[in-house]
Amino acid sequence: MNGYSIPKATLGRLPQYLQYLRGLPQSDGSTISATAIAKGLSLGEVQVRKDLAAVSGAGKPKIGYVTDDLIKNLENRLGCNQLTSAVLVGAGKLGRALLDYDGFEEYGVKIIAAFDCNEQVLQMGRTSKEILPINTLDTFCTEHDVRLGIITVGQGSAQQVCDQMLECGITAIWNFAPCGLKVPNGILLKQENLALSLAYLKNQLCN
Amino acid sequence: MNGYSIPKATLGRLPQYLQYLRGLPQSDGSTISATAIAKGLSLGEVQVRKDLAAVSGAGKPKIGYVTDDLIKNLENRLGCNQLTSAVLVGAGKLGRALLDYDGFEEYGVKIIAAFDCNEQVLQMGRTSKEILPINTLDTFCTEHDVRLGIITVGQGSAQQVCDQMLECGITAIWNFAPCGLKVPNGILLKQENLALSLAYLKNQLCN
Repeated sequence: MNGYSIPKATLGRLPQYLQYLRGLPQSDGSTISATAIAKGLSLGEVQVRKDLAAVSGAGKPKIGYVTDDLIKNLENRLGCNQLTSAVLVGAGKLGRALLDYDGFEEYGVKIIAAFDCNEQVLQMGRTSKEILPINTLDTFCTEHDVRLGIITVGQGSAQQVCDQMLECGITAIWNFAPCGLKVPNGILLKQENLALSLAYLKNQLCN
Repeated sequence: MNGYSIPKATLGRLPQYLQYLRGLPQSDGSTISATAIAKGLSLGEVQVRKDLAAVSGAGKPKIGYVTDDLIKNLENRLGCNQLTSAVLVGAGKLGRALLDYDGFEEYGVKIIAAFDCNEQVLQMGRTSKEILPINTLDTFCTEHDVRLGIITVGQGSAQQVCDQMLECGITAIWNFAPCGLKVPNGILLKQENLALSLAYLKNQLCN
């Protein structure tokens, strides 16, 4: 929290800027213009200028931003250095893939444990992170002050898991189950639907 | 192809309607209004009416659509009954999770094989689908007329895999590697960035 507020839509784009800048070949003191960033990300230039101004002030005329400074400002604004803890429920293949993916920490999120009701999964855990029985979720979330939950169970039990997460004090949910979830006002919900993404691509291909 | 064209944005929403309708409790002859669908999906009513009209004509006044008919029309328009073959390169955890996920076929896409250059992965393949050496990609794609490719390798080799896919005749790419890809005009590219989704949720949570 930097004492001023940024529109949600802008906030949603900041990780994308950060990812883009981190991916550039860099040398000390190198600079980049809002125009170049807009082009690299296929975004509108006006929007990029506005977004970056909210985070890093206006760039220098004809020069733009010092890349390293811009990266630091984005990281600070996104709280990349303050890890937010998340838990995951449903330690099947997708769940374990996410659990082992280390790219989340670069954006300030760490999945600290996974939960499952399937004893076989609990035993076969070959991941570096704990897979715990689902009935310990409440205690765990309280102890670790977890507010972010990831759902990777099947459609049949997603709403139940969601309700359970809310009871444990979780206020933001990332749902991979292919179904909508009902959450009260004030709870953040992001629906991830991989099948829809692929269907979209197929449609474009066939039409 | 039904002989008339639908705007791309509309096409992009059709799988979402289909998913919603399939998830409803149904009985023979049950009907649903555009208003109810709009509400269920948190979309604008005008947009929903327009989208559905493009696929299934106007609904009956005060009644709407016969749900089963609407589902059939959407399925036909989306070609759900004509499976499009896809291949996946990068049979790590995420790749194998996608490979085993059977929800894609409901939207008319079937991942028919995965490719990897890691011999260990090739041997440990406990999935029902083939994991083949990457140097056979070209022959395989030609033989099976594959035009859709999924990239689940790391950032370091994603562009190389992408180029290789294009050489094999693939024209639509779904990229999970956390980096942008360069593709020529006319090639469809959908970037999936799981870390950005999570970062977005975290930002909303902390601001």
